[in-house]
Amino acid sequence: MSLKDVIRSIPDFPKKGIIFRDITTLLKDANAFKEAVDALYEHFKDRKIDKVVGIDARGFIFGGALAYKMGVGFVPIRKKGKLPWKKIEKEYSLEYGTASIEVHVDGIEKGENVIVIDDLLATGGTVEAAKSLVEELGGKIVGFGFVIELLELKGRELLKGYDVFSIVQY
Amino acid sequence: MSLKDVIRSIPDFPKKGIIFRDITTLLKDANAFKEAVDALYEHFKDRKIDKVVGIDARGFIFGGALAYKMGVGFVPIRKKGKLPWKKIEKEYSLEYGTASIEVHVDGIEKGENVIVIDDLLATGGTVEAAKSLVEELGGKIVGFGFVIELLELKGRELLKGYDVFSIVQY
Repeated sequence: MSLKDVIRSIPDFPKKGIIFRDITTLLKDANAFKEAVDALYEHFKDRKIDKVVGIDARGFIFGGALAYKMGVGFVPIRKKGKLPWKKIEKEYSLEYGTASIEVHVDGIEKGENVIVIDDLLATGGTVEAAKSLVEELGGKIVGFGFVIELLELKGRELLKGYDVFSIVQY
Repeated sequence: MSLKDVIRSIPDFPKKGIIFRDITTLLKDANAFKEAVDALYEHFKDRKIDKVVGIDARGFIFGGALAYKMGVGFVPIRKKGKLPWKKIEKEYSLEYGTASIEVHVDGIEKGENVIVIDDLLATGGTVEAAKSLVEELGGKIVGFGFVIELLELKGRELLKGYDVFSIVQY
């Protein structure tokens, strides 16, 4: 099976000219979902990992499954205003304006080895902000894992020097 | 280990008089996270399950891990406006006003056996709306699984006649 076959492409969403890659068709397919999580696992399994960080909200699905499979803890990075305790925040740029993501200050301990998971690497703005948060807490980023990478948006260039792994590329 | 020991209680969040039960301290603890997912798995493992439905956003973490462990597909129920394809919507009451959740119409096929997962059963408003969405698509709900149940809010009463399982009760 190619995972591309179970990713739905939706033209003109969220606006004209954009092709949205919809992973709900992958998720609902038991074999495809397993294959995606296993591919992330295979890529990182020989590294020492202490925590899987997942980015709100689709990163939670793959990140939660991967943390479980690896037998490590899971740390959510959330959109601003969702976390209830002491946290740090990082702003990132959107097409118009900015947004922020947050992480609890006790989510990661100094020196812990971390992988950061999201469903999609596009421009890389969100994941670069996630990287800053993890490193501000003293975490060491072992790598980034994505289900989909949109090559033409060059998000990978914001993560130079890191292990950036994606399963499917467009 | 008691999972209660790794759930953080935060007084007066999101407002005075409420004790917020914070599961990020459970999630980051590898053993506790595994124990929670395994408890959900043990409860449902002898039933025939076709899909795990997880509710946006914390339900994605446990639901994603559980679907992976069970070897079945995962279906996200999302807050309004997040899903890109054909969907149905259900409104539910909040303390002030209403909100809506949505599911793709092809997320569940008629007659499929479904469990619905969220981190928390409180008043039950969201999960009752999720129940309606699953049943409108023809899914048969085998049960509901939660990490935490707030007994005094009696959410369980909205789910009468169903198997409602929670790991930790307050």
